[in-house]
Amino acid sequence: MTRPPDVTKTLSAFICSARWEQLPDAVRHEGKRSILNFIATALAGCREDAIEQTLASLMMFSKGGQATVIGRSEQVDALSAAFLNAASGNVFDFDDTHLRTVIHPTAPVAPALFALAEMRPVRGRDLLLAFALGVEIECRLGNAIAPEHYARGWHITSTCGTLGAAAASGKLLALDAEHMTWAIGAAATQTGGLVECLGTPAKSVSVGNAARNGLWSALLAERGFGGPSAPIEGRQGYLNALAPSTIDWPALTNGLGETWELAKNTYKPYPGGIVVHPVIDAALALRKEPGFALEAIERIVVRGHPLLAARADRPNVTTGREAQVSVQHSVAAALLFGKASLSQYTDACVRDPVVVAVRAKVHVERDEAIDVAGASLHMQTKDGATRTIDVAAARGSLARPLTDREIEDKLRTLASGWCAAHDVEPLINAVWALDGADDASLPMRLTVPA
Amino acid sequence: MTRPPDVTKTLSAFICSARWEQLPDAVRHEGKRSILNFIATALAGCREDAIEQTLASLMMFSKGGQATVIGRSEQVDALSAAFLNAASGNVFDFDDTHLRTVIHPTAPVAPALFALAEMRPVRGRDLLLAFALGVEIECRLGNAIAPEHYARGWHITSTCGTLGAAAASGKLLALDAEHMTWAIGAAATQTGGLVECLGTPAKSVSVGNAARNGLWSALLAERGFGGPSAPIEGRQGYLNALAPSTIDWPALTNGLGETWELAKNTYKPYPGGIVVHPVIDAALALRKEPGFALEAIERIVVRGHPLLAARADRPNVTTGREAQVSVQHSVAAALLFGKASLSQYTDACVRDPVVVAVRAKVHVERDEAIDVAGASLHMQTKDGATRTIDVAAARGSLARPLTDREIEDKLRTLASGWCAAHDVEPLINAVWALDGADDASLPMRLTVPA
Repeated sequence: MTRPPDVTKTLSAFICSARWEQLPDAVRHEGKRSILNFIATALAGCREDAIEQTLASLMMFSKGGQATVIGRSEQVDALSAAFLNAASGNVFDFDDTHLRTVIHPTAPVAPALFALAEMRPVRGRDLLLAFALGVEIECRLGNAIAPEHYARGWHITSTCGTLGAAAASGKLLALDAEHMTWAIGAAATQTGGLVECLGTPAKSVSVGNAARNGLWSALLAERGFGGPSAPIEGRQGYLNALAPSTIDWPALTNGLGETWELAKNTYKPYPGGIVVHPVIDAALALRKEPGFALEAIERIVVRGHPLLAARADRPNVTTGREAQVSVQHSVAAALLFGKASLSQYTDACVRDPVVVAVRAKVHVERDEAIDVAGASLHMQTKDGATRTIDVAAARGSLARPLTDREIEDKLRTLASGWCAAHDVEPLINAVWALDGADDASLPMRLTVPA
Repeated sequence: MTRPPDVTKTLSAFICSARWEQLPDAVRHEGKRSILNFIATALAGCREDAIEQTLASLMMFSKGGQATVIGRSEQVDALSAAFLNAASGNVFDFDDTHLRTVIHPTAPVAPALFALAEMRPVRGRDLLLAFALGVEIECRLGNAIAPEHYARGWHITSTCGTLGAAAASGKLLALDAEHMTWAIGAAATQTGGLVECLGTPAKSVSVGNAARNGLWSALLAERGFGGPSAPIEGRQGYLNALAPSTIDWPALTNGLGETWELAKNTYKPYPGGIVVHPVIDAALALRKEPGFALEAIERIVVRGHPLLAARADRPNVTTGREAQVSVQHSVAAALLFGKASLSQYTDACVRDPVVVAVRAKVHVERDEAIDVAGASLHMQTKDGATRTIDVAAARGSLARPLTDREIEDKLRTLASGWCAAHDVEPLINAVWALDGADDASLPMRLTVPA
C-alpha cells in the first residue's frame, strides 16, 4: 500500500491542533461511556491478586499521596496510579473492545489522563478530548498492523496503548507538535507486552506499563527530553520492529478528524471471550422462555462459525479464567443462574458438580454459514421436544450496543461485588457530567469507598 | 536449527543451581573489570542532559532514600536508581561491548544488582556470581537472534538486557526455578527499545528500563507474581515476537556453565564507534613517531574493510555525537590532541577551525583485504614523504584487551572530567575487592563526591 510521508509528523500535528469543538457529540458521549465502562471493570479488578501484588511492590518505591488507586484507599505516585488503574481495568478482560484490532482501548489511555488530572488542574472536556485523541492514535496504529502483529505474540493493547497514552497525555499537557513527537518517540521505545502472558498475572504488567510509560513519555517531552523525528515510520522505528511484513499505511492517517475510532468502541455485558457472547445471549433467552425446565434438557448443540469451535469448544475446563472462553461452561452457567457475570466464572463455579453436569450436555458444531458475530443454540428435551434460538449479533456488539443504562448497571453490579455499601450513584453522575466539569479528577475520588 | 526443549526451564534451572565455586577465576576477574569500566562510564555520563532530565522527573514520583545515583548526591528509590545508573553507564556508548551481538552487557545488569544491594544485605561474591549469570542470559539471547533482531530496529542491549537484569536479580534474591521463570516472564513482557532512538536522549529510556524492569520483575516474582511457563520459547513469547525469522536455538543452551559470555566482554579505550578504534590507534601511533609534524601533512588515506567506509566515512560532521562515528574527525582529533577521549568528541571540538582543517585532509577508502577489526593509515607529506601504519586489531579488542591498569585509568580520567577533587582510589580498590566484600554496595557509595 502507498506509504504516506511523515506519519509521525502528521499525527502529531493532528493531535496538537484538535479542538473540543471539532469532536462530534456522539464521540464525546462515547468517551463518557468508555470511561464509565472502564471504571466498572476497574472496580471489579482492583482487589485481584495481580493488583494487590503490584500495588504492594510499587508502594515500596512510590512517593505516594499523588493519585487514586481506583476503588482503594491507598494513594500512590501518579505513574504508579496509571499503572495500577490500567491493570485493574483490564485484568478480567471485561473491559471495552475495538473489534477490528481487538485492542482494549480505554485501559492504557484513561488512567494516564486521570493520574495527570490529580497532579494538575484539568477540565473535564480537556480530558475527554485528549482521551478521544489517544484512542484514535492507539487504534489507528492497531489498524495498520493487525492481525499479524498480535499473531506474532505482541499484546496489541499494550504495544499500541503506550503510544495512545503518550498522545493523550501530551495533549493534556498542551505539547506543541515537536514535543508531541518526542513524547511519541519515548513511548515507542517503551512498548512491550507478550500474548504468551495471557492467563497469568504477568499479563497485567504490560497493560499497566502502557499507561505508566505513556504518561511518563509525555512528562519527559514536556521537559524538553528529545527523541527521533520519525519514531513510528523511521527505518528502525516502531512499525518496522513491530509489524513484521504488512502495514496498512493509509489506516494511519486517512480521514484524520473525520472518522473517530472511539465511535467504534464496544462494551461487554459478560466477562467471557467475545465469540462466546452470542451463545450466552441465546442461553439466557432460552431460560426465559415459558415452560423452560433445566432438568428436562437432554442435549444442547451450539452451532457457530468455525472460529467459535476453534476458540471456545472447551468441555472440560478447570479454572474460571479458562471458563471465560468455554461455550460449554457459559451455556451451563447461564441456564443455571440466569446470568453470566464474574461470579459465574470463578474457580468454585467451574467445579460446582451441578454446573459440571449441565456442561456435559453441551456440544459445539461448526457451521460456515453462521456469521462470526452470531450463534445458533439447539436444545433437545428428554421427551423429544426441540427448540432453536438464533442470535445474529450479540448484545454489546456494534449492531446491538449496550445502552447507557446497561453500562451503568454493569458498574453497579461490579462495584457491589466487593463493596455493597459504597454508593456509586455520585460516581456515575460525575462521569456523565465530565464534559462540564472543572475538575476532571472527581470520578477517581468517588471510586473510593468512604 | 534444532530447537532444544524447555529453553526457559533449562536456563532457569542453570541460574538457580549455579554456585560461586563453579565460576572460573578468569570470569570472576572479568566481572570486576566490567563493573569498573561500567562505573567509569557512568561517572562520565551522570551529568548528561538525559540523566538530569530523567532524574528530575523520577524524583517527582520516587520515595527516595533507598539507593545511590552514581556520582551524585541524590538518593532515589531502588527502581529509579537502577534506571538512572544504567542510563548513565550507556549514555555515551563508551561502555563495554559483547562483540558478537554488539550488546553493551553491563549497563542493564549491574545497576539492578547494586540497587538491590542497597535495599538488602548482599555479599560481593553473590553479586559477582549473579552478574555473570545475568550477562550469560542476556548475551545468549542476543547470540540466538543477532544480527537480524537489531537490523529490524530492536535495541538489543535493552531487549536482551531486561531478561539479563531479571535473571541476575532473581539469583541475588535466591529464587527457585519456578519463581525464576516468572521473573523472566515478567521481564520478557517488559522488553522494548528502538534503534531509531540512537543519537537522541530517548535512547537512554530503554536502557534504563532494562535495568529497572528486570529488577522489578524479580521482585514481583519473589512475591509469587506468576507468569507463563515458557516466556522465551512459547508460541507467542519473546523469541517469536522479537526474532522475525531465524533463531540460533543451540546458542541458548549449549555448553551452559562450560563457557561464559562475560569472558568475551571488551572495553573501549575511546568513546567512538568500535569500527573507528583501529583508525584511532593508527593515528595515535603516527603522532608518536619521531619527527612527526602536523603542519607537514598533505593528505591522509585510511583504508579499511568496506564496513568502515559504510559506517564511518563522515567528512562533514557537525555534532560531537556524530563525530564518534567519523573517521575524519577521529583522525584529526587524535593527531591534534594526542588522545581520543570525551573531550575530543564535544560539539565545540567538532567546530574548532583547526580540527576542521585537519579533517579535510583525511579520506577513507575501501579494501576488502583488510579485516573489519583492523585498518591501515597512509600519510603523505607536503614534501612527498609517505608513511603507512597498519593496525591488525584495535586496543580494547579481544585480541588486545585493555589491561586492568588501563581500565582504572579510564575511570580516573572520566571521573576527573567532572569532579577533579573526588578521590576515586577507594572506589577502584573496592571494586577489585568485591569478591571478598561483605557489603556489595560499598562501590556505589564511593562514587559520590564528598
